[in-house]
Amino acid sequence: MSASAQTSKIDSVNIRKIYDEALLRGQSYDNLRQLTGQIGGRLSGSPQAQQAVDWGKVTMEKLGLDRVYLQEVMVPHWVRGAKEKAEIKPAKGKGVALNVCALGGSVGTGGKLRAGVVEVKTWAELAALPADRVKGKFVFFNRPMNAAYIETGRAYGEAGDQRRNGAVEAAKRGAVGALVRSLTLAHDDFPHTGAMRYDEAVAKLPAAALSTNGADELSQLLKADPDLTFELEMSCETLSEVKSYNVVGEIRGSRLPDEIITVGGHLDSWDLAQGAHDDGTGCVQSMEVLRLLKATGLRPERTVRAVLFMNEENGVRGGNKYAELAKAANEKHLAAMESDGGGFTPRGFTIEAPAATVKRLQQWQPLFAPYFSGRFTAGHAGTDIEPLKGQVKALIGYDCDSQRYFDIHHTAADTFDKVNRRELELGGASMAGLIYLLSKYGL
Amino acid sequence: MSASAQTSKIDSVNIRKIYDEALLRGQSYDNLRQLTGQIGGRLSGSPQAQQAVDWGKVTMEKLGLDRVYLQEVMVPHWVRGAKEKAEIKPAKGKGVALNVCALGGSVGTGGKLRAGVVEVKTWAELAALPADRVKGKFVFFNRPMNAAYIETGRAYGEAGDQRRNGAVEAAKRGAVGALVRSLTLAHDDFPHTGAMRYDEAVAKLPAAALSTNGADELSQLLKADPDLTFELEMSCETLSEVKSYNVVGEIRGSRLPDEIITVGGHLDSWDLAQGAHDDGTGCVQSMEVLRLLKATGLRPERTVRAVLFMNEENGVRGGNKYAELAKAANEKHLAAMESDGGGFTPRGFTIEAPAATVKRLQQWQPLFAPYFSGRFTAGHAGTDIEPLKGQVKALIGYDCDSQRYFDIHHTAADTFDKVNRRELELGGASMAGLIYLLSKYGL
Repeated sequence: MSASAQTSKIDSVNIRKIYDEALLRGQSYDNLRQLTGQIGGRLSGSPQAQQAVDWGKVTMEKLGLDRVYLQEVMVPHWVRGAKEKAEIKPAKGKGVALNVCALGGSVGTGGKLRAGVVEVKTWAELAALPADRVKGKFVFFNRPMNAAYIETGRAYGEAGDQRRNGAVEAAKRGAVGALVRSLTLAHDDFPHTGAMRYDEAVAKLPAAALSTNGADELSQLLKADPDLTFELEMSCETLSEVKSYNVVGEIRGSRLPDEIITVGGHLDSWDLAQGAHDDGTGCVQSMEVLRLLKATGLRPERTVRAVLFMNEENGVRGGNKYAELAKAANEKHLAAMESDGGGFTPRGFTIEAPAATVKRLQQWQPLFAPYFSGRFTAGHAGTDIEPLKGQVKALIGYDCDSQRYFDIHHTAADTFDKVNRRELELGGASMAGLIYLLSKYGL
Repeated sequence: MSASAQTSKIDSVNIRKIYDEALLRGQSYDNLRQLTGQIGGRLSGSPQAQQAVDWGKVTMEKLGLDRVYLQEVMVPHWVRGAKEKAEIKPAKGKGVALNVCALGGSVGTGGKLRAGVVEVKTWAELAALPADRVKGKFVFFNRPMNAAYIETGRAYGEAGDQRRNGAVEAAKRGAVGALVRSLTLAHDDFPHTGAMRYDEAVAKLPAAALSTNGADELSQLLKADPDLTFELEMSCETLSEVKSYNVVGEIRGSRLPDEIITVGGHLDSWDLAQGAHDDGTGCVQSMEVLRLLKATGLRPERTVRAVLFMNEENGVRGGNKYAELAKAANEKHLAAMESDGGGFTPRGFTIEAPAATVKRLQQWQPLFAPYFSGRFTAGHAGTDIEPLKGQVKALIGYDCDSQRYFDIHHTAADTFDKVNRRELELGGASMAGLIYLLSKYGL
């Protein structure tokens, strides 16, 4: 047997050990049950976000790592408030109540806001509307995600401009508010929240998401009754920034402790539900990576750090802070991995790196093929690790089956019961396997 | 562009058309909603199974096929009856009620049956027990499925001997009943039913499944109190055979109508729930294959038949009848495909065929890779098409993500809400894509 075949055989055996440990004695699922059940939604700045920081620290401390610490970071503090309701008011007849939710960061309505509605599907449509058709109205952005795409993330990316930019573009045309079709391929009654932006040059309009069923209903009613009005009441507001933290745990490398590999997820979530798939799963998988390396006795040759990033959803302050501190300390970072696409069955990894590095990583694909995780492709890695670009040789995203993610993403349905134990565990094992190889061979 | 590259380009475009139709205008999900919601569980011989036959025929007739017909077949008629309960009776203190269900085909207990319990994990353990430790007792088969396997089906196959053979082996040792740990990797309170067998040479003992939590509890209590007794009451019984049907719909091939390609799932299900993933999904996907070929204008060159097989769960009478009639009519069958592993995200196909045929099929893998469905491997294809072996060039199984299947398989939890619309649709499209290629190129 050649030296390299020998190496590969050992790696194959060690990766199998990691999977065995994850599937037979995994702790990620129980950790997720705690995080989602005992704390629940944990939007940046909320008391629950602080509880999650405390929980993350204590939970990592129990792993017997070489170091567990916090990184202080100031985060935005937006609150939904008690009021959030909407009603379609036809010209004649009874009003129709709709499920809505404020987009994250939206201003409130200051009491009830009632106005006509103009529906658009594209920016060009909005631009082409005469001024008096938009002024004083709600602009209703109703372009669905494209169900024909196999990758749901691509459809999300393409339709997401409505949520992100709707309020600004509506304001430019003199509208009074923005209503956005929820970013999901499901047909149901859950409104999906998510980040939006304002532009200081124009008025800050309240912006709300309608469920896909609600959006279809509004669109239908508008066709028959273009003069209907929409009444929105939201008491959301942005408070002063709050001190918060990234939670970091690390195992020091046995041979090259100064070379650092990061693996993380984000600890904050939207407030509507438990933040189970987004991104409780990424957090517990990242902690599980460290546990798996310890439990299997596969001490990493380079330093491996699990990071629970704060504030991915509405600011990326934690991700930015982590990269900033790494730079300030002149740390040598080899690679960073993030799991933030849900805790679903693995497919492999997406990689942001020069083509030669992607190719090098792809040489390890056969080691993961027996676990259905051997598909390494170039692609977006993760929002929290993005700021490390230029400081690492590769950014790596945990890539998993994406079909169910946007059904529950940013909604009240993102709960623990939607997570399958084995899917979660297979993901953590895949991540640990690749981290093990990176720590052994470098890049 | 070479002729073969040209062909491949056309095939690629046509397969994309099939996926577009499935994802944008798919009907399989709504069909499944009807089958599971309006009819529900449909065990062979039940009124619901007959309703499902009627529904399948009417639903296929609406597709405008060349021919829709029924194939008569006699099926077993086992009924669960009204009583199904169990209690652990400790030597001292209060009884502990447990969720149980009769295994399919079990005899009833004829009133309350109370006896001691002896737990075993292997056949060797049972064989090694002294006669007086087994005689007059319940044998409790408590070997868990192996969670370390990546393929859950392999773990199911290995542990399944307990369910199939437990009652016979227990009877050989003079026991009074068999208790079997449910075949699942989940830890929950659902008992899983499923087929079992008797041997005319020994007594027919009642056989029941315990949920995994229940099995763990019984095992725990037995350790502290080996003399506890178990009380089981089940009123299940086998009635006279009933006339039932396979439902068949076909599109005649445009060029080689005498060569037949079969695609199917089984219409019967266990009685505990709605039979959504097992195997409502396979039925609606098979019908969807025909609809997709029609809607995209890709008229198959060979005849394609969708078959909703009756009685997979406890007899395979429908599968046997289909093969028997095909043989009697001297039909020329090219290939048969079955979807009976749930309606989860596609991985590819499993193939039972000579190695050269498997290799030939694998040449099409790249056409399915963009849909995450390009993994063609040798492996078990499907129970209902198995009887066609020797009459076809290849048996093909729809292969999909298997992690969640056994959580709900044969339980009250196998319901419509567990099926994801896109996963189901992607599966139907994958099946239609391969059927299209088979109908065009043969084997």
